[in-house]
Amino acid sequence: MKSAQMNGHSLDQLFNPRSVAIIGASSDPAKLGGRPIRFLLEAGYEGTIYPINKRAETVQGLKAYACLADIPGDVDQALIIVPASAALEALQDCIAKNIKAVQVLSSGFSEESAEGLVRQNQLVELAKRHGVRLLGPNCLGIVSVRNRYFATFSTALEALTPSPGGISFATQSGAFGSCAYAQAIQRGLGIARIVATGNEADIDVTECIDFLASDTQTKVICAAIEGCRDGNRLRTALLKAAAAGKPVILMKVGSSVTGQQAVATHTGAIAGNDRIFDVVCQECGAWRAYSIEEMLDIAYVCTQLPLPANDSASIITVSGGIGVLMADDAERYGVKVPAVSEELQQQARQVVPFLVGVNPLDTTAQIGAIKQGLSDLIDLVIGGTEFSTHFIYLAQIPCDPGRFLPLLEQLTAIRTNYPDRLLVLVGPSEESLRKQLEQQGLVIFADPGRAMRAVAALCELKRRWLALHPGLPDPVRPGRHRPDAAKPALNEWQAKRLLAQYGLPVPTEALCESAAQAVTAASEIGYPVVAKIVSSDIQHKTEFGGVLLNLQNAKQVREAFEALLDAAGKLSDKPSIEGVLIAPMIKGGVETILGIHIDPTFGPMVMFGLGGVAVELYDDVAFASVPLSKARAGQLVRSVRACRLLTGWRGQKRLDIEQLESALLRLSDFAQDWAPVLEGVDINPFVVMESGAACLDAVISFRKGT
Amino acid sequence: MKSAQMNGHSLDQLFNPRSVAIIGASSDPAKLGGRPIRFLLEAGYEGTIYPINKRAETVQGLKAYACLADIPGDVDQALIIVPASAALEALQDCIAKNIKAVQVLSSGFSEESAEGLVRQNQLVELAKRHGVRLLGPNCLGIVSVRNRYFATFSTALEALTPSPGGISFATQSGAFGSCAYAQAIQRGLGIARIVATGNEADIDVTECIDFLASDTQTKVICAAIEGCRDGNRLRTALLKAAAAGKPVILMKVGSSVTGQQAVATHTGAIAGNDRIFDVVCQECGAWRAYSIEEMLDIAYVCTQLPLPANDSASIITVSGGIGVLMADDAERYGVKVPAVSEELQQQARQVVPFLVGVNPLDTTAQIGAIKQGLSDLIDLVIGGTEFSTHFIYLAQIPCDPGRFLPLLEQLTAIRTNYPDRLLVLVGPSEESLRKQLEQQGLVIFADPGRAMRAVAALCELKRRWLALHPGLPDPVRPGRHRPDAAKPALNEWQAKRLLAQYGLPVPTEALCESAAQAVTAASEIGYPVVAKIVSSDIQHKTEFGGVLLNLQNAKQVREAFEALLDAAGKLSDKPSIEGVLIAPMIKGGVETILGIHIDPTFGPMVMFGLGGVAVELYDDVAFASVPLSKARAGQLVRSVRACRLLTGWRGQKRLDIEQLESALLRLSDFAQDWAPVLEGVDINPFVVMESGAACLDAVISFRKGT
Repeated sequence: MKSAQMNGHSLDQLFNPRSVAIIGASSDPAKLGGRPIRFLLEAGYEGTIYPINKRAETVQGLKAYACLADIPGDVDQALIIVPASAALEALQDCIAKNIKAVQVLSSGFSEESAEGLVRQNQLVELAKRHGVRLLGPNCLGIVSVRNRYFATFSTALEALTPSPGGISFATQSGAFGSCAYAQAIQRGLGIARIVATGNEADIDVTECIDFLASDTQTKVICAAIEGCRDGNRLRTALLKAAAAGKPVILMKVGSSVTGQQAVATHTGAIAGNDRIFDVVCQECGAWRAYSIEEMLDIAYVCTQLPLPANDSASIITVSGGIGVLMADDAERYGVKVPAVSEELQQQARQVVPFLVGVNPLDTTAQIGAIKQGLSDLIDLVIGGTEFSTHFIYLAQIPCDPGRFLPLLEQLTAIRTNYPDRLLVLVGPSEESLRKQLEQQGLVIFADPGRAMRAVAALCELKRRWLALHPGLPDPVRPGRHRPDAAKPALNEWQAKRLLAQYGLPVPTEALCESAAQAVTAASEIGYPVVAKIVSSDIQHKTEFGGVLLNLQNAKQVREAFEALLDAAGKLSDKPSIEGVLIAPMIKGGVETILGIHIDPTFGPMVMFGLGGVAVELYDDVAFASVPLSKARAGQLVRSVRACRLLTGWRGQKRLDIEQLESALLRLSDFAQDWAPVLEGVDINPFVVMESGAACLDAVISFRKGT
Repeated sequence: MKSAQMNGHSLDQLFNPRSVAIIGASSDPAKLGGRPIRFLLEAGYEGTIYPINKRAETVQGLKAYACLADIPGDVDQALIIVPASAALEALQDCIAKNIKAVQVLSSGFSEESAEGLVRQNQLVELAKRHGVRLLGPNCLGIVSVRNRYFATFSTALEALTPSPGGISFATQSGAFGSCAYAQAIQRGLGIARIVATGNEADIDVTECIDFLASDTQTKVICAAIEGCRDGNRLRTALLKAAAAGKPVILMKVGSSVTGQQAVATHTGAIAGNDRIFDVVCQECGAWRAYSIEEMLDIAYVCTQLPLPANDSASIITVSGGIGVLMADDAERYGVKVPAVSEELQQQARQVVPFLVGVNPLDTTAQIGAIKQGLSDLIDLVIGGTEFSTHFIYLAQIPCDPGRFLPLLEQLTAIRTNYPDRLLVLVGPSEESLRKQLEQQGLVIFADPGRAMRAVAALCELKRRWLALHPGLPDPVRPGRHRPDAAKPALNEWQAKRLLAQYGLPVPTEALCESAAQAVTAASEIGYPVVAKIVSSDIQHKTEFGGVLLNLQNAKQVREAFEALLDAAGKLSDKPSIEGVLIAPMIKGGVETILGIHIDPTFGPMVMFGLGGVAVELYDDVAFASVPLSKARAGQLVRSVRACRLLTGWRGQKRLDIEQLESALLRLSDFAQDWAPVLEGVDINPFVVMESGAACLDAVISFRKGT
């Protein structure tokens, strides 16, 4: 028998086993080794449960086995709940029994001590050698609600029983996961899968997202990670989910300085750069949530409704005040609330003569006086607009079955006629009412602001998905002409030559070893010129007078040459001097900064910002992953607030943004080729002119020891 | 008999009447005129209810009267629920009966038509003439829960019954109020008073806040306004509440552009400047909330706990992941989570040997193994720190009475020993459990982020209250040397003279009518100088070459004089030219902008920002109310992000911030004196130097027709 739910993923046996052995099974249903058996029995798991217990004939009414080898047939999965010191032996038994999926729920591994880390490494090595997939150790286990597979000892499930639905949870921390799914259950949200990965010795949250992306039971993925070991695998998993039309709502715990310290203490995982994480979520069509409540609000809407095709919404309200509040919220969260057409206004006033406003549309509390007035108005507005979302503020109507049940019937009909629209009710609701609504594809929120925030997230997710498919390049494209070896540090001349090879605009310059050479170069370049000291030992030239500007003639160039050598010669650390750079004096344009930052998790990222104090004062820079697409380069430039200085600020001419974007793309090419040895790049300033652009200075640094 | 709840406020009779007449009383408990009687009877109102109904002997079991005059004794209050056209006559009857508090619940007034506005004005005039206080018209009425006075026809109260407590609601929109208090009731929060002011023909939300500030039943005030007619009255009411130790949580609906349009359509009230509203809340010790949920979260904590004395918190958690999340939230919302002392760490590890971290303190899920481990740890941390707030994340423990009830007992003891600390539990809770906790002065949140956000608001409120008492000047200080009349527009010379009279630093300058005068002035001032055209008709001099910089000698000054007159003479609108200003050429320093903005609601506000593109690109300006205190001037300067440019940016010297603050104070003096006729002031640039500062240009404009 092959389970119908198998989809060929390597984690299939973990989530959909036909049989499970519990190693360390206890007859006491309250103990760690007893709880999974109790949960499985209570849930009515249809597969076979094999308790392994040397000293008992039966365990909680099930036939027990002294060891795995005693089990007659095949076993899909094993849970190891024995002390850490005995876990390796248990795993050996699993291998002997040809079990390919093993959960180690026991603690006492890397989270506890160096000795524990050794034990954990032994486990993983053994598992890998035999092709066994390992969840944990120190994890809370797996729940597959539809399969009634409750292979966990989470106490949260003692008080709460999840009902089947489309939301899946994948978290590193079991306690974090419990907090999230306990809230979900208490809110009556339906759940597909729950997995907590614990120490992630083998399987991590990323791989679980990858599994859930192709899991037919899962509609929405709620995930929480602390650290991320492989940025590209996470990118790939997120892109896979987006391609499958499954929203991923991701929390990253440990974004604050205090939080990061706590993470380091907690699991030893190093939280990546928080800001880069935001960029990656945006690029890969995922949503980053900042609270469990926000995560669940978005998941709730996603399981019921399609993502909206556009950002526009109508607000129909029985209260003017709440209509205004929702319009405020719409602006704050980025949902558009355009006026409905004059024609529709007229039609609407035929239905509700005392209607106020053009959107929000305020029926006032008098709407009760018109039979079917509210539903007729809703029908009219949905039919008469292309808006994807329709909010309906109902005040206390949902508490009054006499008024609400007829409305619900009419809303159900409307819902059927317009399956691509989002109908979001706002008002109080009991769980039974919510269930009734959800069966009709309607959602309801008590708080108007939370309804708007959730819809805004859906709109943004849709924008991100739309931005994905045309241009997103393969994030693991191989390098093209990566050099064999890299020098530890490049001087300005070398850095610019290298960037020029990639097509970045570098002015015609000359590296001169004598004053005479400098004068010849200056006359070839054309006066005025700039003279700069060139040394791979000196990163900050201007601070000791290593840059002399606006030289007008041969005499000044000769003097500048001597002055630069003099000044450099006086430096206490005796830098090696490679010469003097003679370059054209470029005036005008706007100074920008281009850079490459190597994120330890997500690899090379292109940075863009405007020059001047704004970058430091207002942190007005933006990042994008390498490799950059043309569309993404444009987005990167526009996402910097000071970008307005380039696009015709206060009557000035528009600058050469095409050249800027082209430079960013070429810088991305460079970063991709050199990523393995690169530490960072700073092109500062990169001057953008009305026509053309130029790297005026560049620093390229390589990782030590490469 | 005088009610014990009277406190001498002019709204006393409205909130605490001993008897009430219902004009338009209906025997049908579902009709508008029947509902208040039903609610009053159901609630068990102990005062006397007099239904007024010409055609009935009794109404809902109460003796009815054909008219007010038939009632034998005094009547404290009347509710008018007759058609708008009959309301004036009903009010006349009230006056004849010497009733001093009247609610007009009927609609059909200014909210509906011009005719309605006329009716409304007639009502108010009549009421004012006879000293009658009027609530409404078009309002939802009043609820005083402890008095069991339910004088409203709000349908929200059909399904929901508020329990007595400390939260009061004052909103303009009845429907907005219903939405807020319905959520509060559904959350089990206790309520003191509810009032919706409707059209605010007489009594407005501001006056209700003023009443509630002195109301002994009210602990926390939740208010929502759309427009505000008199900013100073609102300031006074907010300050009164802060002085009484009552947090005011204020929502302003209509902050967005769309929202503002909706408000205009909805009530005709013009929403004031949204940003100024924030400033006023901050200055007057109130909290501005952006959602009903946020409002209720904060109110919930405020009714149970004192405001925290400091911003520091401990986080004790049974889950590392949630601890990290809460540390992230703390940083985001501005709550400090400092490490506990080494001594305390050692003591804590004696209680919980496997404790992880220094704050958050993570007991891990194993804490269940140590009897009283959690409560002993909590006791230790509270006793061993001065932190005002202690978060305790409990995971699912509250769902398990066997584990939670003993803990609750221990927490209650701790609570008693440390009455000034905030103990905030995080975990799921049923309403009955919440009630039990609240009786012990403990609060519980399901969502960790919301718990942190509410506590952060309390911390900020406390900071605002602390900043209030020493320096806040009387916001209605009378003007000192206000001039008799103001010219419609001042030229630069006049504007600077006027500002100099107030002590603002203006360089020695001369207004010259001839080239010879200009040369003389320049030599007295000392070269180099600046020459500027002076005209009250020209606001933007630089655009047509009306400013000539860096003049080095008499010849250049003479040429500049002629060139300026020439250029001005060519302007098409033929401005009147009052002369040429000769001023010293001031170099160096940092350019800032000082200004006065006259907010239509809140009056004159001082503005401060840095010069350059940052103000426009990053909106990096700050406002403060006039009059400014010295402390507030410092706060104003520091609240601008670019302020770092003044305080020793990148190794530069610190600039003369004392002079800057002094100039802001003097500008505030100026604005206070001239407020009645002023339209605005721009001092741009105001240059701050290492020693000293100078107004280099100034525009003062007055309101048209003054």
